Amino acid sequence: MAEHRPIQIGILGLGNVGSGVVRVLESNAEAIAHKAGGPIQVKRILVRDLAKARPVEIPPSLLTTDAQEILADPEIDIVCELIGGVEPAHHYVVEALERGKQVVTANKELMARHGHAILAEAARHRRDVYFEAAVAGGIPLIRPLKVDLAGNRIARISGILNGTTNYILTRMAAEGKEFSVALREAQELGYAEADPTYDVEGLDAAYKIAILAAIAFQTPVDVTRVYHEGITRISPRDIAHARELGYVIKLLATARDEGSAIDVRVHPALVPQNHPLASVNDAFNAVLLNGDAVGDVMFYGRGAGSLPTGSAVVGDLIDVARNIRFGATGRVPCVCNRNKPMRDIAELSTENYMRMLVKDQPGVIAGIAGILGESRVSIDAVVQKGTQGDLAEIVWITHPAPESSFRGALTRIAQLPVVHEICNVIRVER
Amino acid sequence: MAEHRPIQIGILGLGNVGSGVVRVLESNAEAIAHKAGGPIQVKRILVRDLAKARPVEIPPSLLTTDAQEILADPEIDIVCELIGGVEPAHHYVVEALERGKQVVTANKELMARHGHAILAEAARHRRDVYFEAAVAGGIPLIRPLKVDLAGNRIARISGILNGTTNYILTRMAAEGKEFSVALREAQELGYAEADPTYDVEGLDAAYKIAILAAIAFQTPVDVTRVYHEGITRISPRDIAHARELGYVIKLLATARDEGSAIDVRVHPALVPQNHPLASVNDAFNAVLLNGDAVGDVMFYGRGAGSLPTGSAVVGDLIDVARNIRFGATGRVPCVCNRNKPMRDIAELSTENYMRMLVKDQPGVIAGIAGILGESRVSIDAVVQKGTQGDLAEIVWITHPAPESSFRGALTRIAQLPVVHEICNVIRVER
Repeated sequence: MAEHRPIQIGILGLGNVGSGVVRVLESNAEAIAHKAGGPIQVKRILVRDLAKARPVEIPPSLLTTDAQEILADPEIDIVCELIGGVEPAHHYVVEALERGKQVVTANKELMARHGHAILAEAARHRRDVYFEAAVAGGIPLIRPLKVDLAGNRIARISGILNGTTNYILTRMAAEGKEFSVALREAQELGYAEADPTYDVEGLDAAYKIAILAAIAFQTPVDVTRVYHEGITRISPRDIAHARELGYVIKLLATARDEGSAIDVRVHPALVPQNHPLASVNDAFNAVLLNGDAVGDVMFYGRGAGSLPTGSAVVGDLIDVARNIRFGATGRVPCVCNRNKPMRDIAELSTENYMRMLVKDQPGVIAGIAGILGESRVSIDAVVQKGTQGDLAEIVWITHPAPESSFRGALTRIAQLPVVHEICNVIRVER
Repeated sequence: MAEHRPIQIGILGLGNVGSGVVRVLESNAEAIAHKAGGPIQVKRILVRDLAKARPVEIPPSLLTTDAQEILADPEIDIVCELIGGVEPAHHYVVEALERGKQVVTANKELMARHGHAILAEAARHRRDVYFEAAVAGGIPLIRPLKVDLAGNRIARISGILNGTTNYILTRMAAEGKEFSVALREAQELGYAEADPTYDVEGLDAAYKIAILAAIAFQTPVDVTRVYHEGITRISPRDIAHARELGYVIKLLATARDEGSAIDVRVHPALVPQNHPLASVNDAFNAVLLNGDAVGDVMFYGRGAGSLPTGSAVVGDLIDVARNIRFGATGRVPCVCNRNKPMRDIAELSTENYMRMLVKDQPGVIAGIAGILGESRVSIDAVVQKGTQGDLAEIVWITHPAPESSFRGALTRIAQLPVVHEICNVIRVER
């Protein structure tokens, strides 16, 4: 391939990810130029504050506070959207496409909420919108799903897609810390935001699993309908009980194609200790896929961070640059030609762990087991360990049962006079 | 993207992999057609014996024993080479390129030995030669390296790249079996060939790591110079000692870019129990990569088998079909623009485990430690456990030292009158 004119890019946003992209482009410039068939040059970067100190050295002439200096510049081939959030990112991406530019974005919220429409817009203009960095940072996932594994019918995805919560759960498990303590430490180390809601309530993971499910199952996913439940109620006692029963607790994002409908959700889960995701610790992410031809495949790495995310963005830039040189933009389009409804979590069958405090007196277990039996929820394990004053702690694990039956039984159990408190209920995933 | 005429493929070889490809193409035909922008049709299949019973149902009219019916057919767009071995596969691939066809191959030996020349030939004709299935079956690796991780300088690759030997080592570790027993069982289960040399001597893994190293380090790799050592000398005693010291024994394929030279090799290694590759068991494969931007990334899955390998071949077929429709074949070329020499294993610094039987008398450890010290090989751990008659078994683990120094010391130690036998020496990798 002959070397062509440099590909010019405009970057929107010079935060954590933007600086990572600039750094990767600089430090491996020669190899990147070779692979892309010519240099990839940063022509302009949109920032909010020209005067702000940056972790990377950038000639001030490259910076602008006016998005139009990028979107309206006919020399810019690729717009690299790294602002995050829906607006104004959405607006910029659509304008870039309308002006004939290619787009690379790391924006999970944008792609989860508006990906289908954006990819349709891209197809209309025969342009690329690549978004490898939107899910699990540097770990290759989107392209493997769209290309390498394209011959498979994907049945199931399970992933640890949020580094912050995985770090917190790992610390809680290793040191027996309370959630609030582990969260504060994660904040001090920069693993968690000052307002941690987005991570600890499972919203971040919900965006990511929605994107993966859409690609894997070839159907648009309404992210507002993805069930998500966070880790704020997990206690070190739950983690200790889970361990004794052979499980670890993870914030799990799962997606299943059940044929006529899909099941996409994020919640804490007890995972067997020998499960491939059980040993994914600290801020690492991992995704386990099951395809009808390939069987189980797992991808593991750093799901966030300036350089890992920069790695994914630059991989996309190189791929788009190749498409530009070959006149082949738009060659990997949106693949969602199905339209599968999403199953409500109430319709699903789940296994559940529950921990409760009950009066320490005869017949309590029999009473609770009776209610579970009447609701056709059968019991896999029950453990009573020690007493706290006149209360005993009992831990149950059920066999799979419809959520509605289980939740119905739970309401009745909570009303029993001998039940002091249902401390926690966590699903079990295998 | 409008639907185009079907892409026609000719398959060379209908063995294990060929049948898998046919099966994947059939069972997911509709989704594959959608992703590829139109159907992918098998026009003809080269076989050796028309009458042979096949695991897949194929219309007899598709089969031929004459390769020219595929290579010379102007309607065939992609030649899918699944014969294996160097000849006649090499000849067929080159002829296909000369006749303007695209090539997808699963042939590791061919790509390890002649990949550089074949990719140069492909570039001359502006054709694709895709070979995702050549390394680690269904696990996406080649494309992630060439595209997703293209912005990284890859420093290190370590992998479990041979399912047969990993299965044997897993059984030896789990059940304390001798190598020969575990091998026989693997043969009975179809995990090992009647002649297991290719797998158990590390040759298969050497081809695969040579291919990965060439792509990752952008340099041709002379596979005949890749050091390889098999697992035939590993005993259950070594595995047991390793376990007590906190290690597992794996057949490890490693490649390092040391800047001015590369280090590529395959040998058994003690790996710390908490190493990501330590828990890869049975016939599974996994590859751990380290890139300067992405950090550690791991890929895990089935490295062999009809359907997993078929999955990789079909992923390539879909990608090449997209290139054909967009007139963009040749868009991901060979990236080897460097030429780094390969370091000889004698020049490397390694840590070593050694197990020996010595006369059970005072001063033996001191004598051996003295020789190691004179050769500047320092000791990380030494364990003496029990006696066998008048012999004692001693296990050593050294700190990193030049292979030449260590091997020199080993020769001197073996000559000591108190040393009955040096039972095994295995490198340690972290």
